Amino acid sequence: MIKAGIIGATGYAGGELVKILMGHRDVKIVWYGSKSYTGQPYGDVFQNFFKIVDGACLDDDLERLAGEADVIFTATPQGYLASVLNEKILSQAKVIDLSADYRIKDVSVYEKWYGMTHKSPQFIEEAVYGLCEKNRQQIQNARLIANPGCYPTCTFLSIYPLAKEGYLDMKTLIVDAKSGTSGAGRGARVPNLYCEVNENIKAYGVTTHRHTPEIEEQLSYAAGEPVTINFTPHLVPMNRGILITAYASLKKEAGYEELKAVYDRYYKDEYFVRVLKENVCPETRWVEGSNFVDVNFRIDPRTNRVIMMGAMDNLVKGAAGQAVQNMNLMFGLEENEGLRMAPLFP
Amino acid sequence: MIKAGIIGATGYAGGELVKILMGHRDVKIVWYGSKSYTGQPYGDVFQNFFKIVDGACLDDDLERLAGEADVIFTATPQGYLASVLNEKILSQAKVIDLSADYRIKDVSVYEKWYGMTHKSPQFIEEAVYGLCEKNRQQIQNARLIANPGCYPTCTFLSIYPLAKEGYLDMKTLIVDAKSGTSGAGRGARVPNLYCEVNENIKAYGVTTHRHTPEIEEQLSYAAGEPVTINFTPHLVPMNRGILITAYASLKKEAGYEELKAVYDRYYKDEYFVRVLKENVCPETRWVEGSNFVDVNFRIDPRTNRVIMMGAMDNLVKGAAGQAVQNMNLMFGLEENEGLRMAPLFP
Amino acid sequence: MIKAGIIGATGYAGGELVKILMGHRDVKIVWYGSKSYTGQPYGDVFQNFFKIVDGACLDDDLERLAGEADVIFTATPQGYLASVLNEKILSQAKVIDLSADYRIKDVSVYEKWYGMTHKSPQFIEEAVYGLCEKNRQQIQNARLIANPGCYPTCTFLSIYPLAKEGYLDMKTLIVDAKSGTSGAGRGARVPNLYCEVNENIKAYGVTTHRHTPEIEEQLSYAAGEPVTINFTPHLVPMNRGILITAYASLKKEAGYEELKAVYDRYYKDEYFVRVLKENVCPETRWVEGSNFVDVNFRIDPRTNRVIMMGAMDNLVKGAAGQAVQNMNLMFGLEENEGLRMAPLFP
Amino acid sequence: MIKAGIIGATGYAGGELVKILMGHRDVKIVWYGSKSYTGQPYGDVFQNFFKIVDGACLDDDLERLAGEADVIFTATPQGYLASVLNEKILSQAKVIDLSADYRIKDVSVYEKWYGMTHKSPQFIEEAVYGLCEKNRQQIQNARLIANPGCYPTCTFLSIYPLAKEGYLDMKTLIVDAKSGTSGAGRGARVPNLYCEVNENIKAYGVTTHRHTPEIEEQLSYAAGEPVTINFTPHLVPMNRGILITAYASLKKEAGYEELKAVYDRYYKDEYFVRVLKENVCPETRWVEGSNFVDVNFRIDPRTNRVIMMGAMDNLVKGAAGQAVQNMNLMFGLEENEGLRMAPLFP
Repeated sequence: MIKAGIIGATGYAGGELVKILMGHRDVKIVWYGSKSYTGQPYGDVFQNFFKIVDGACLDDDLERLAGEADVIFTATPQGYLASVLNEKILSQAKVIDLSADYRIKDVSVYEKWYGMTHKSPQFIEEAVYGLCEKNRQQIQNARLIANPGCYPTCTFLSIYPLAKEGYLDMKTLIVDAKSGTSGAGRGARVPNLYCEVNENIKAYGVTTHRHTPEIEEQLSYAAGEPVTINFTPHLVPMNRGILITAYASLKKEAGYEELKAVYDRYYKDEYFVRVLKENVCPETRWVEGSNFVDVNFRIDPRTNRVIMMGAMDNLVKGAAGQAVQNMNLMFGLEENEGLRMAPLFP
Repeated sequence: MIKAGIIGATGYAGGELVKILMGHRDVKIVWYGSKSYTGQPYGDVFQNFFKIVDGACLDDDLERLAGEADVIFTATPQGYLASVLNEKILSQAKVIDLSADYRIKDVSVYEKWYGMTHKSPQFIEEAVYGLCEKNRQQIQNARLIANPGCYPTCTFLSIYPLAKEGYLDMKTLIVDAKSGTSGAGRGARVPNLYCEVNENIKAYGVTTHRHTPEIEEQLSYAAGEPVTINFTPHLVPMNRGILITAYASLKKEAGYEELKAVYDRYYKDEYFVRVLKENVCPETRWVEGSNFVDVNFRIDPRTNRVIMMGAMDNLVKGAAGQAVQNMNLMFGLEENEGLRMAPLFP
Repeated sequence: MIKAGIIGATGYAGGELVKILMGHRDVKIVWYGSKSYTGQPYGDVFQNFFKIVDGACLDDDLERLAGEADVIFTATPQGYLASVLNEKILSQAKVIDLSADYRIKDVSVYEKWYGMTHKSPQFIEEAVYGLCEKNRQQIQNARLIANPGCYPTCTFLSIYPLAKEGYLDMKTLIVDAKSGTSGAGRGARVPNLYCEVNENIKAYGVTTHRHTPEIEEQLSYAAGEPVTINFTPHLVPMNRGILITAYASLKKEAGYEELKAVYDRYYKDEYFVRVLKENVCPETRWVEGSNFVDVNFRIDPRTNRVIMMGAMDNLVKGAAGQAVQNMNLMFGLEENEGLRMAPLFP
Repeated sequence: MIKAGIIGATGYAGGELVKILMGHRDVKIVWYGSKSYTGQPYGDVFQNFFKIVDGACLDDDLERLAGEADVIFTATPQGYLASVLNEKILSQAKVIDLSADYRIKDVSVYEKWYGMTHKSPQFIEEAVYGLCEKNRQQIQNARLIANPGCYPTCTFLSIYPLAKEGYLDMKTLIVDAKSGTSGAGRGARVPNLYCEVNENIKAYGVTTHRHTPEIEEQLSYAAGEPVTINFTPHLVPMNRGILITAYASLKKEAGYEELKAVYDRYYKDEYFVRVLKENVCPETRWVEGSNFVDVNFRIDPRTNRVIMMGAMDNLVKGAAGQAVQNMNLMFGLEENEGLRMAPLFP
């Protein structure tokens, strides 16, 4: 059994990690870390786990945890892991970080978009960007995984095949994203109150959202050229789910069959990426509670653009599920072990 | 492997059965029956199953299915199973009926509340009411299970210990219930449109809801006397979940500790019934997507009443999950096999 | 023009007051009081009023306000008004209090249920309970109005005719209530976050909700005997609306026509109370955004109980609308002036 | 008093017309037309109008109605008005059409996108496109108004100033739109059921939505050149509201102050268009139930694009409210008469 510890177990992503790992036959959770709820029974904080999780919340002592666990998941605020990570920890336990601390290779870009000084840039190089569908090999040997952001995961997987194959004029790429409210976290803030979110839709972080450079970096690798995009997230009155709608001009003429073949080539062996049938648009309801990403595209001959769409559960493939997928790779397990649950509908 | 067939696989309860059975290691689904969608790929009707369920929808030929399956689940409209069930079917496959056709022992009561003639009353006596926590023994040997209704399951489990132990003045019992909209089914009707249900709450079926006699019959067995109640369901703008709030006068004086001990005695070995801590009210969010029922109570010394509450996922413990729980018992499996998933939150 | 001041203008009820008074042809708002947002433009806090409300938020200096306004609305936390009200204020301006400070005549009951000492009990006797349909005469001459609570308003108007006419065995009365989330206020608390309220229903304040003694007092006046009830509120995932479902045994045999005639007699001249047609249940969607209360009832001959139901917008008839209705009466205006807006659907 | 008749009074837009016209001091509704509900009391179909609207639903006899009304609103399916309109009707009553029948000047474009033959193209030339902020003069003298579509209204008003002033490279324009579910109408269809829409977001009509040519035509007039765009609507789990997020490259360098001045110049005297403060994004909650359109923009120096945003209530400014605004202009009333209601929040 793999002994797993979670720091930040009382956030939404942390709770999802607990749910998934409880259903994973090779894993035992040994540490429910929560700075805010230390000492309280975990099943009292998240009552869905009442009577099925026994432990009380522990603190966030990463060093001690490293001595007791084989793998540590950190679902913590930006900057936390960077401020405490050290070689000793990494030599004792594998670390999968759900925050953004090691996702961006250029530390100056990180510091600019996140507005903070990076406290341990020495680990950035080593960290592997844990997008399993792309970096499967490196992940298997990694000690430190930078688990991708929710928007970047959905965006990248929706666009990757066409970007990589040179179909897209990357200068024209625009990503319009929509997310459920669990992405905003469990902090008590007025804008996230029920009556403020319900019956409303709004854009936020327009031109400034922190996931922008992460998306750009990954797409740059794919396209083989620097990529600068517009990325606009919107807050949707629902609990879970991300939908991205991406627009780009085609660099070369191509019909549906040709582009469909490209997507199929990239994803035919990918368990978690489902390329939908022609004219079927991804919808978040069809992936909720699962690790799937549904993608599809549509060509507009009037404008010579391709519209690429992707839907995903932000807490699963966008956070906890992908983290477990990374863990599976790191420990030599089946990549979809513990992750084969079908989406929950309705 | 148990070969399972589902009639009515394209309703909400049918879809939940597919989801649960796919995660059950001892079961293989051999028949996705749907009169409305016969011939269409199942994964096109419920796209959450796209690429993970291969089959196309088959018809509702129960006789043929009985020859190919070990167990048949019927998630069909009232009266359907009663109109086609026969001895030959029952001799070939076990049948778990999610409709109300065999739940009520007195056929005249059934016919009055359901407004239809019962077509095969000869099987009513044999049918076992599949409330596992109560009828575990009989279920193990049954050929035909009447899977309980959603409201009756939640109501019964919330009240049973106190009714059975004689604490309640049953003449004073009132059950005020609240349900998510999946309980209304997937039929295209104006009252179930998004804009009609959203931002609304209403009572329906006041004094006339069909689950009333089912609740009364089961509580009569428990209390050892005829029980007549008021049962008022309400439609809540959410997908899943049932909450019941029940009121009854105490027949004898009793404090919290005494009643708590009663609940604990009945449920301490029940995996799926969670008696909450003092003053913690059941909430549907904590059971969504799981087979758990959370129950609790509160005594009001001012009125000498006890308020009993229960929360449950109407599609799981209230339908598909309980059906699988019954199947597990009938086939000698662990009762919670395939049903240990933790609730999904948020 | 009546000059109106609002203390607590940046809560949900305060915002509704602003909306209603803006559409009232005889009123000019002179004071947008908000302790939390003093100095900020009101249209920045509640952006629905951007460009249509000019002022900035002022403080909560009730004495100064009394010198500038003809009427003061206080939509403030419990205890606030009681701590600052004095004779000088009351001699200068009429005060309509949306908090509970002067609703309960027995100060010891208030102090017990609200858990605080009443700072100005000398005004309790004078305060008129502002349920216009019942206390119309006294309201016209009042200086101080205790604007009724949302649950009490809906409960009382649904039950009043039958209680007053002696049809109900008041000892058997049970009120099961359901409310939208705006009733919980705009404070930043985890239980009111979108993801905690959405897809959930729960009871709260079981046996202890503060509106209980208010309901009991008013029903006692109506029934002519002390009334003790069970009152159980539930939180519903919607913004606005209250539905109550009340149960009581009939003291004398009576059929639909007889009880309908009673309701009609009491409400035939009431603009804001709509007695629905037979078998039509009140629904919150049909009253949203309006000052209407829809009521109806159903007799259950099996149990000899009558189920009484009422639906209302908690922010309008349950708070701001009723406050304006009181103001109209106090200033000799048409009772429905500024309140004739039809409900908003969907 | 202006006598108004409504054909299609039992759809969502028709109901909103009734609500607005009831609050309009110069109008009396004389005809509640509904093919589906002819003969039924209007207040039984839309119970928000119970006891406040007296009439029963009449049929859709436009010729007879023209003899009884001064103005006719048609909130009817595409093609209906075109199939019955004639000179006699237009000579007797002004007609404001909420369908798309006369919005597009090039009949071949209409017939292609709407997939039907236009039955009365002879009136297309005469019909005035009822976007009041742009065509105020022609509207005053019109007999036939083509009331703009919801998406086109929101899109146009968000983009118009910059398009007209030549700031935008119109070839790069992309409009990503999000709408509440009332826009899908009140027809009983499975995709619009509560459980299908709730907890979901999806794109629909990608590259094919019928509002595309309407937007293009109006933007072409503004920009002085043919405009072809990508327009992608999304269905959001909420009742009301449209948000559009539009992207275009700037043709000339410009800073915030310059573009803000352009918007202010166009809209400073427009009651219904609110240009928000810098960095404040439009949100549908702030306009719900009102005729306002909130617009704003943000420049991205990294990509040289401007992101333009607009929020609006699809049933008010996107349908019924704008129709009444047109009526006011046609009858020489204050343009905002009956339309000054503040948005409803929450």
